[in-house]
Amino acid sequence: MQIGIIGAGECTPEVEKVAEEVGRQVARCGAVLICGGMGGVMRAACRGAAGAGGITVGILPGNRAEQANEYVQIRIVTDMGHARNVLVVHSSDVLIAIAGEYGTLSELAIALKLGKPVVGLETWDISPDIVNASDPAEAVEKAALLVRRP
Amino acid sequence: MQIGIIGAGECTPEVEKVAEEVGRQVARCGAVLICGGMGGVMRAACRGAAGAGGITVGILPGNRAEQANEYVQIRIVTDMGHARNVLVVHSSDVLIAIAGEYGTLSELAIALKLGKPVVGLETWDISPDIVNASDPAEAVEKAALLVRRP
Amino acid sequence: MQIGIIGAGECTPEVEKVAEEVGRQVARCGAVLICGGMGGVMRAACRGAAGAGGITVGILPGNRAEQANEYVQIRIVTDMGHARNVLVVHSSDVLIAIAGEYGTLSELAIALKLGKPVVGLETWDISPDIVNASDPAEAVEKAALLVRRP
Amino acid sequence: MQIGIIGAGECTPEVEKVAEEVGRQVARCGAVLICGGMGGVMRAACRGAAGAGGITVGILPGNRAEQANEYVQIRIVTDMGHARNVLVVHSSDVLIAIAGEYGTLSELAIALKLGKPVVGLETWDISPDIVNASDPAEAVEKAALLVRRP
Repeated sequence: MQIGIIGAGECTPEVEKVAEEVGRQVARCGAVLICGGMGGVMRAACRGAAGAGGITVGILPGNRAEQANEYVQIRIVTDMGHARNVLVVHSSDVLIAIAGEYGTLSELAIALKLGKPVVGLETWDISPDIVNASDPAEAVEKAALLVRRP
Repeated sequence: MQIGIIGAGECTPEVEKVAEEVGRQVARCGAVLICGGMGGVMRAACRGAAGAGGITVGILPGNRAEQANEYVQIRIVTDMGHARNVLVVHSSDVLIAIAGEYGTLSELAIALKLGKPVVGLETWDISPDIVNASDPAEAVEKAALLVRRP
Repeated sequence: MQIGIIGAGECTPEVEKVAEEVGRQVARCGAVLICGGMGGVMRAACRGAAGAGGITVGILPGNRAEQANEYVQIRIVTDMGHARNVLVVHSSDVLIAIAGEYGTLSELAIALKLGKPVVGLETWDISPDIVNASDPAEAVEKAALLVRRP
Repeated sequence: MQIGIIGAGECTPEVEKVAEEVGRQVARCGAVLICGGMGGVMRAACRGAAGAGGITVGILPGNRAEQANEYVQIRIVTDMGHARNVLVVHSSDVLIAIAGEYGTLSELAIALKLGKPVVGLETWDISPDIVNASDPAEAVEKAALLVRRP
């Protein structure tokens, strides 16, 4: 299973803590963590997953692998800027959105357009199709269930 | 000037009428109309612009030029699916959003992320940075002003 | 008809002269000129086409319309780097390759992969499927014929 | 280290045997195998790497993860068709080209354009910058050296 974590490249320490715990739970359930490979929510989630022995993939906007945060293990270099957001969505069996700004909103919109399941943690309230969760463990549990019985 | 028109690939006759008038006004102010090249709002806007002697450009999601609606004059074939939305945003000096669903929302989000000016006609209410207009003439007038004095 | 002109972003004055004449002939036969929008062969071809009253389209690698050469009329901003080469190929009904380096070779390879017709002027000799021409007028004439009777 | 293996989606049993052994050697030297995720050379290389305990990544052209060959562990879904070739090149620290047709040629051209190191096994003879190898072990050894001392 490939679980995508989406959220802003800069975030508060509270949101970081949530993202790190989501990453840890993704690794514990045996899933590969897919993300945009940059800072903020992405970095915190990768740190959580890598620390728990999971595999982390960063789909990067620029043209250099060095752009990835230090917890990304597999670096996909796109040189496509924001269009790489669409690849994050396509490459995830399910997405977990954590807070987030306009970049995250663009990913949510593409996910909903594609009918891809999405779990939200304090994120954009734009659709009843986003399954809300109240903490990281519940978010990952719901995400895993959505993939198994869509 | 290149003005992007974004909106859904299927829409009501009322929204179509608005889109056609927006297209006509875009042509009258001498701008090139950029859009996703498909049906609904895109087709109606192209019809309006082409009928008023304007130039219409469709940035298509699939791999065949024939996919374009019949009022598209210049066909950009991307074979990139929804990622082509990002190219519509990048290629427009200003965007006019007409109603719209998740695809349009993804374009609005990318435009706001990039700081690109956006005028909205009955569209997603996601940011105070979207300049609202109450009719097609006002939308195009405001769009032109936003490009000249951003 | 949309005719793609491919060639290097820097070139000799002799190659420039050929590219400018190819652009002029493309405009005279009523076709839209598609190219990568940058310097060298692309700029010379756009200058020829624009000078003869034709329409020129630049599919740009970067994220700014200002990157286009001054003879590009319609600017498609991709922010996709070299991946925009594939869009140049997809958007052309036929391609004319003028000399060229590795970027041109990548476009030739994609065109041949897609079965898109290609006319060559002193370009990479990688396939019998490339139709050779000995001067600009012959190149555009052969290109137009390849679209009409593929 | 991420080593990209490029080659055709259909190939002879002899080429498959070479590709499988290259994949095995990539895994043995501890590198991640990057490829286009489809059949032929890509599938054989993934089989070799996966059988030797390595990690395999497929950067897929279509919009479905199921398109990947059965030895791909991490599936990057691009929905970008041939433009995904550019991502394979960008995401690899070094490339090993095995035989190959026009798709492979487009990847070689992009790699050479970017100045990315390339090792060739019976592949397109288009540049003295391609380092030739006579067997899989030598190819992977030379590739690893090119990354360490470029």
